[in-house]
Amino acid sequence: MTSTVPAPLASLPRPSSSFASDNAAGAHPEVLAAVMAANEGPALAYGDDPWTQRGVAALAGLFGVDVEVALCWGGTGANVVGLQCLLGPGDAVICHEGAHIDEDEGGAPERFTGSKLITVATPHAKLRPADLDAPLHVLGNVHHAQPKVVSITQSTERGTLYQPHEVAALCRAAHDRGLTVHLDGARIANAAAALGGDLRAFTVDAGVDVLTFGGTKNGLLFGDAVVFLRPELAGRLPFVRKQGAQLASKMRYLGAQFEALVAGDLWLRTAAHANAMAAELAERLGSVPGVELSGCPEVNAVFLRLPSAAAVAELQDWSFVWEWDRARHEVRAMTSFATTVDDVERFAAGVAAIVARHG
Amino acid sequence: MTSTVPAPLASLPRPSSSFASDNAAGAHPEVLAAVMAANEGPALAYGDDPWTQRGVAALAGLFGVDVEVALCWGGTGANVVGLQCLLGPGDAVICHEGAHIDEDEGGAPERFTGSKLITVATPHAKLRPADLDAPLHVLGNVHHAQPKVVSITQSTERGTLYQPHEVAALCRAAHDRGLTVHLDGARIANAAAALGGDLRAFTVDAGVDVLTFGGTKNGLLFGDAVVFLRPELAGRLPFVRKQGAQLASKMRYLGAQFEALVAGDLWLRTAAHANAMAAELAERLGSVPGVELSGCPEVNAVFLRLPSAAAVAELQDWSFVWEWDRARHEVRAMTSFATTVDDVERFAAGVAAIVARHG
Amino acid sequence: MTSTVPAPLASLPRPSSSFASDNAAGAHPEVLAAVMAANEGPALAYGDDPWTQRGVAALAGLFGVDVEVALCWGGTGANVVGLQCLLGPGDAVICHEGAHIDEDEGGAPERFTGSKLITVATPHAKLRPADLDAPLHVLGNVHHAQPKVVSITQSTERGTLYQPHEVAALCRAAHDRGLTVHLDGARIANAAAALGGDLRAFTVDAGVDVLTFGGTKNGLLFGDAVVFLRPELAGRLPFVRKQGAQLASKMRYLGAQFEALVAGDLWLRTAAHANAMAAELAERLGSVPGVELSGCPEVNAVFLRLPSAAAVAELQDWSFVWEWDRARHEVRAMTSFATTVDDVERFAAGVAAIVARHG
Amino acid sequence: MTSTVPAPLASLPRPSSSFASDNAAGAHPEVLAAVMAANEGPALAYGDDPWTQRGVAALAGLFGVDVEVALCWGGTGANVVGLQCLLGPGDAVICHEGAHIDEDEGGAPERFTGSKLITVATPHAKLRPADLDAPLHVLGNVHHAQPKVVSITQSTERGTLYQPHEVAALCRAAHDRGLTVHLDGARIANAAAALGGDLRAFTVDAGVDVLTFGGTKNGLLFGDAVVFLRPELAGRLPFVRKQGAQLASKMRYLGAQFEALVAGDLWLRTAAHANAMAAELAERLGSVPGVELSGCPEVNAVFLRLPSAAAVAELQDWSFVWEWDRARHEVRAMTSFATTVDDVERFAAGVAAIVARHG
Repeated sequence: MTSTVPAPLASLPRPSSSFASDNAAGAHPEVLAAVMAANEGPALAYGDDPWTQRGVAALAGLFGVDVEVALCWGGTGANVVGLQCLLGPGDAVICHEGAHIDEDEGGAPERFTGSKLITVATPHAKLRPADLDAPLHVLGNVHHAQPKVVSITQSTERGTLYQPHEVAALCRAAHDRGLTVHLDGARIANAAAALGGDLRAFTVDAGVDVLTFGGTKNGLLFGDAVVFLRPELAGRLPFVRKQGAQLASKMRYLGAQFEALVAGDLWLRTAAHANAMAAELAERLGSVPGVELSGCPEVNAVFLRLPSAAAVAELQDWSFVWEWDRARHEVRAMTSFATTVDDVERFAAGVAAIVARHG
Repeated sequence: MTSTVPAPLASLPRPSSSFASDNAAGAHPEVLAAVMAANEGPALAYGDDPWTQRGVAALAGLFGVDVEVALCWGGTGANVVGLQCLLGPGDAVICHEGAHIDEDEGGAPERFTGSKLITVATPHAKLRPADLDAPLHVLGNVHHAQPKVVSITQSTERGTLYQPHEVAALCRAAHDRGLTVHLDGARIANAAAALGGDLRAFTVDAGVDVLTFGGTKNGLLFGDAVVFLRPELAGRLPFVRKQGAQLASKMRYLGAQFEALVAGDLWLRTAAHANAMAAELAERLGSVPGVELSGCPEVNAVFLRLPSAAAVAELQDWSFVWEWDRARHEVRAMTSFATTVDDVERFAAGVAAIVARHG
Repeated sequence: MTSTVPAPLASLPRPSSSFASDNAAGAHPEVLAAVMAANEGPALAYGDDPWTQRGVAALAGLFGVDVEVALCWGGTGANVVGLQCLLGPGDAVICHEGAHIDEDEGGAPERFTGSKLITVATPHAKLRPADLDAPLHVLGNVHHAQPKVVSITQSTERGTLYQPHEVAALCRAAHDRGLTVHLDGARIANAAAALGGDLRAFTVDAGVDVLTFGGTKNGLLFGDAVVFLRPELAGRLPFVRKQGAQLASKMRYLGAQFEALVAGDLWLRTAAHANAMAAELAERLGSVPGVELSGCPEVNAVFLRLPSAAAVAELQDWSFVWEWDRARHEVRAMTSFATTVDDVERFAAGVAAIVARHG
Repeated sequence: MTSTVPAPLASLPRPSSSFASDNAAGAHPEVLAAVMAANEGPALAYGDDPWTQRGVAALAGLFGVDVEVALCWGGTGANVVGLQCLLGPGDAVICHEGAHIDEDEGGAPERFTGSKLITVATPHAKLRPADLDAPLHVLGNVHHAQPKVVSITQSTERGTLYQPHEVAALCRAAHDRGLTVHLDGARIANAAAALGGDLRAFTVDAGVDVLTFGGTKNGLLFGDAVVFLRPELAGRLPFVRKQGAQLASKMRYLGAQFEALVAGDLWLRTAAHANAMAAELAERLGSVPGVELSGCPEVNAVFLRLPSAAAVAELQDWSFVWEWDRARHEVRAMTSFATTVDDVERFAAGVAAIVARHG
């Protein structure tokens, strides 16, 4: 693709997949096949079935240690259930100011857990040990909600990645002060794929206590799991999942999906593909005059700045993406397991055409 | 079937479907096909897709008036979301002491809404206008949580049925005192089928304000809807669903299922079949000496008393059913869209064999 | 007093204290004097002052073991704070159906703790070990809120008294199943006085884990304390009290009151007096034809049945008391530290006059 | 006072009142006398007594319009009760990042209301209309908690003051977007006194919907009131106060205090005195070399920076004040109705002595 004379937008074919979010894709065919196959005969509800047992075992097996797993409907539910098990009255959660739990869950954590969320502003949406100092200054002071959990997102809402040693350092800092660490892994597969497939390095080995393992954004019809890497913290987990309205009745369909996701490393293949498509997209957009990339994509998100609000609106109209920073005309393009090279080419060509007119 | 010389249990074939609950069945083939068909191409998440729009429209169309619909993951979630929209601080819900919201939702209503549930004991798991008198005695008294919602279940947890005029009378009594009426319709299809298919008679026409429309127990993989028959009460519904962790990301799969459920009256066909199987089962069991039926089944549940705890245990071991009243050796056998006449025959034969040994 | 010819009501002097409740009395002069004396000079807020330290120490000293004490504003606040420290997500509280926490706290326990209250109906407002069997049947079943606390009231809302061995048996039954025991002691002083002053026999020695020590109903201006007899359960207590809006700013006034209440056994003297006045009242009323006493008073409440609703209304108009059972025309007359023999005589004479006209 | 040769600290008399906070003072003698006087005879509990009626009427009379008043135990309780009446599920509160409700109430607002607090950083602890733009960007977006209330503090936690026109502009901006305005008036008297006594100018006339009227910090033993300037929003107020464990049993003592506070403009006299003492203190400290004042005091708080952490520690040891900004060695000195000119002189002399040694 050259940037010299972009074609007019009207003449360009739209991408056949969406860059709005990785949850705009449907389900992966292997996942769908597993759901079909799970539709055989009766099965006791609420997880007392072989599909659930196999799905849970498959997920647990990824961590190489004794863990407790609870399959949930979606990411918000899984986050809320995991956090609730870690929190008591008077407690608070420290998270980044752009964290999904703070920004995008409709206040579910506060409503369900009754706990305060304390947000910290940092670059790249990542928390560092020093970022805990200020919020932890209140520890022991009865007038302040008491930080009890540090919650991070991997990969982050900003498309960045914690290196394993960064997670480990944060976990040490948190544990030293008596806090536990929760990792929102709605896109944990993309992180693992970007880190060479080594899931354990930034979870078990790094000291994370509880995480969510996202399935929805990685090819499931639905389903995110809560995984307690320290099972001794999971004593209330089954009751909390039920009370959080996250206990699926016909859980076989959740179990079957997770079993399929783990089998043959599907979760890593889909995530690696999404990541590769983002890299591809960034490379193509990087050469478009008038488009500024906000850093190189580390996983499956590309953040790009367009020349104007009008350009953003035109792009949204043509192939919808979410605006991330209104003032800077920045949008986010997400890739998924379903994104094709052809989609990337089309999307980049569209952007080029729009920018050429608005530049 | 005769009761004279039952065959020994070991020689009898087990039913191929389960009588433990209607959610032990899988998904109906037409529903599954709809899910498959919905897996085409990208779709914006959270309901901004054509499947959701069609599914919601189909459901709304059943009521013949302007309604607000929110598709949720399951029954507990749908109940909690609906109730929360009706409740403010200091409020309480009146329900039967065996109501699912009180007994079987793990305390989700209290946790999420912060409201008290006030239970009333009545025969047949049904509330009558006079049953409101005692709990409403506290209205206006600041020391007591204030009843604001009457919640009934149709068909009930005890397998009984409200006649339309009974619902209407209760709604009038509630409205007269400033309360709204919530109907837990996890098995609303079974009720409608039993009442000649006239859904509106005991909902819209009777004055119900908000109901849940159960899909899970009637052939979906998952999915129960909240339906506000008075849309003016639904102003917070989208936010409450999100905050309740009931907003599906890839909602197309919910939409497609509900569309399939409504199309060609599948919801009534499946429910009517389940009801018929319960009637069939009751008839067969009624002639087994030593088995006592707790009334005639009105929908798809048969409650039966066995001679002893040992008989219950043996039945559970052979073909699992839930014990309902330990002291009376009473169990509940549920039928579903997937129950066959052959299953009924086998189950009844098994019961007969067990009772013959334990009588 | 004879019952032969009661004087007409209009000619009778009204009692100068109220039998409506023990909180209709003001503050005891010794308590008021302590408040005055505490008004000297500055004092750091929130309990970091000598009055609070002395008041807490005095209260703690009553129990003879290491305890944790938190002074709170009132009875509802103290109950909610104590319970919250014992409850986690998914948990429930078992209590009597007439328990103050269930009936008279405006739903505060559910709102603040998010937990379900499971009520049990028993005679005399007292729970016995066997009463736990039915609610504990759900232990371990994920669909049900999990009983975690048994809450009893001593003396009870019905004016009855647990004997120490009854409390001990209940505590054993609760502890055996992994539950803790909370004792609502809004009138704990009346109980202690009725039991010969032996507070420890039915608290520490009986195995109670947490209790409230009521001051308001026993001569304070305001103030009820939470006392953790097992301090290891009190780790969150200071934070929970703050979050429950029960941390007094100028706490010296709470501390000074409790110091005065304990000094010279004022708490027992006031309670014993109230109890004696109730006995006196019962004796006088017992000889009034047409008045039926509901048992002998064990502490400071007399429950009496009048001939008709009109009689109740006339009594309420003349000297207000609360109706307890509308159907039985039963009212409750409470005595307090401020009740005099003259008040008792006047009240009994008034009742006699009213009953004579309505009998 | 000259700054040339400060005397050694050991030789200086300590102030006889505390500058730690305005709640370190006791109760005003007129208030105490009112409490004594209220101790006459019986009175029905929970506010059904003449003292409460007079106290509420006195408070209401200050506003010149029809208002609803609820007397509460303290500031946190009053804030929580007021906010809860304004909030529904899914809602959020916008406040300054240093707001008492966010920083100093132990997470009570989140626990009790279930709502998210969204904080904004601004200079001088004051919100301006433009500060609402960013948080209001999420209005209507189901993924975000929905701002429903703007909460401001008058005078602020930073000792600053909103001018009436500033409050009015903010109220307009909030109302235009469908939000209500809550004013935390723990020190509303200091603000009113500083603004010439015109309470209505920055409350009723400015468009505030609900406020708290602080008594504790202005000479009461305890007690802060919630005042609904728009009574139509107060429908749930009595029930919310009860559920919030803020309903005093012997409410006569609250009523009597507020009656005394309003009578003879005691509330303005005490506040004006405190403000004057702060001005006096600022003037004296302003001439001490090595002490930097953070602006001129607008009400009863003086913020000053000392040369070093050691100086702060020495001052705290000698006459305790709270550190406000550790990095800048900044402390806060509060004055109250009980502060005397002699106290101010002594405190300033002590600061001078300390700074001389640490400069």
